[in-house]
Amino acid sequence: MDLSQTHYVELICIGNELLIGKILNTNAQWLAKRITSLGLLVRRITVVGDDLDEIASAIKEAIQRKPAFIITTGGLGPTFDDKTLEGVARAIGREIEENKEALEMVRRKYEQYVAEGRMEKFEMTEYRLKMARLPKGSRPLPNPIGTAPGVLLEYEGIIMIMLPGVPQEMMAIFDESVVPLMRKIAGNLTFYETSLNVIGLPESDLAPLIDQVMRENPYVYIKSHPKISEKTHRIELHISTTSDDPGVARQRIERVILQVSSLIHDKGGRVQPIQI
Amino acid sequence: MDLSQTHYVELICIGNELLIGKILNTNAQWLAKRITSLGLLVRRITVVGDDLDEIASAIKEAIQRKPAFIITTGGLGPTFDDKTLEGVARAIGREIEENKEALEMVRRKYEQYVAEGRMEKFEMTEYRLKMARLPKGSRPLPNPIGTAPGVLLEYEGIIMIMLPGVPQEMMAIFDESVVPLMRKIAGNLTFYETSLNVIGLPESDLAPLIDQVMRENPYVYIKSHPKISEKTHRIELHISTTSDDPGVARQRIERVILQVSSLIHDKGGRVQPIQI
Repeated sequence: MDLSQTHYVELICIGNELLIGKILNTNAQWLAKRITSLGLLVRRITVVGDDLDEIASAIKEAIQRKPAFIITTGGLGPTFDDKTLEGVARAIGREIEENKEALEMVRRKYEQYVAEGRMEKFEMTEYRLKMARLPKGSRPLPNPIGTAPGVLLEYEGIIMIMLPGVPQEMMAIFDESVVPLMRKIAGNLTFYETSLNVIGLPESDLAPLIDQVMRENPYVYIKSHPKISEKTHRIELHISTTSDDPGVARQRIERVILQVSSLIHDKGGRVQPIQI
Repeated sequence: MDLSQTHYVELICIGNELLIGKILNTNAQWLAKRITSLGLLVRRITVVGDDLDEIASAIKEAIQRKPAFIITTGGLGPTFDDKTLEGVARAIGREIEENKEALEMVRRKYEQYVAEGRMEKFEMTEYRLKMARLPKGSRPLPNPIGTAPGVLLEYEGIIMIMLPGVPQEMMAIFDESVVPLMRKIAGNLTFYETSLNVIGLPESDLAPLIDQVMRENPYVYIKSHPKISEKTHRIELHISTTSDDPGVARQRIERVILQVSSLIHDKGGRVQPIQI
């Protein structure tokens, strides 16, 4: 079973802090891992700054590639540089409007903060209202951790999901509201993987063996990752496949492990299992 | 002094392992931090898989945005899925050819591995030759750690630099061969930054204060980063500027610290320094 465009996901991560290297993009890795394990395929990750033109063009370009999902992270908060929703609205030519359900979510959060003694009193300022101003046709996704709701909208058959940049909020909304949608698209597709350590062969001698095994196993992907550098000759061999049948996946991977190990031994190398 | 297009850099990170979330994109963060500290501006980071079409289109799109530099990481090694140079060649319409200087670099590496007893003997197989097959007009950049040379070429006034994906090799080539080129473009431009901790104010109450201070300090960028979530009310305030004069940069940042601290105190919040 092959992955088609109906299984493509694009991630767009928004924030100057990513472009200046202030933080590692752990959100992208977390999402990529989660989405892959759900049986879908992340096709591209784009990082842009807090700039309206940049956000709008990154989204437009992703739309043109027609993935099943576009997921953004960052830029949903109350400050002037939280521009994601304005960027989305511009990219798809929709107006921004006050969303009643989102307003209710934001209001209830602040009332809760007041009740818990975290704030003295609460007024609905324009900065707070901003978190409830969504592109027309959006549905807010509850944020169990923070204030700004996530946002879901459909455009030309693409499901667009906007998540906050704060990791705990992003993960909570993803698990609660996005996973069920993705499971519906992916069905029982699952990603299976394993890794081996290859010792005593340079990557350039391993390359033809991988070629041969991949030709004979078209549904399995094998990638070599030299550790530290080629001259130390320790190479991680990552073997993966996606299938809706766990038995088929296991068979495919076991067959590859046997074939590749035997070829490596013949060339004088050694193979060890790795926990991943 | 404003940053213009002549200071833009785009990063393109190539590798399926990034799209499945197997590894964190530490290369992008390291490069972004380094490039920012050199006074240049990373405008976009794109991650694509080991797929010729995807690599070629990511590069074509970056070229259309006319940055000063395009830097790729990954896909320079000897295996079938190392497709970066073929992708670049396709994007700019140039042939791939054997580069004598690169071939010499690769040969010397393997001779060294044999001399050091890491390999028994060495033949120039097609897999090894691949690392010396570069787009026409390229210059190989010495790799002090591993085997595959980095690659530099100019196209339509853009400096394109292809680096390996193994972090130690990428960093070594960047520091040795790329930093001097970037210094030439950036002159004395340098990035200056500091961070403050804000306690006792929600981000939505901090937002109007940041707006006001940024309006009065057009060359300084201020960004709030809520830690854990808005309701804990600890927010990192990151303050940065780029200038060719360290005195000017210091003055700008100190002025912002004074203004923003005083506004935060008036609203009942507290400010603490952070080491970054």
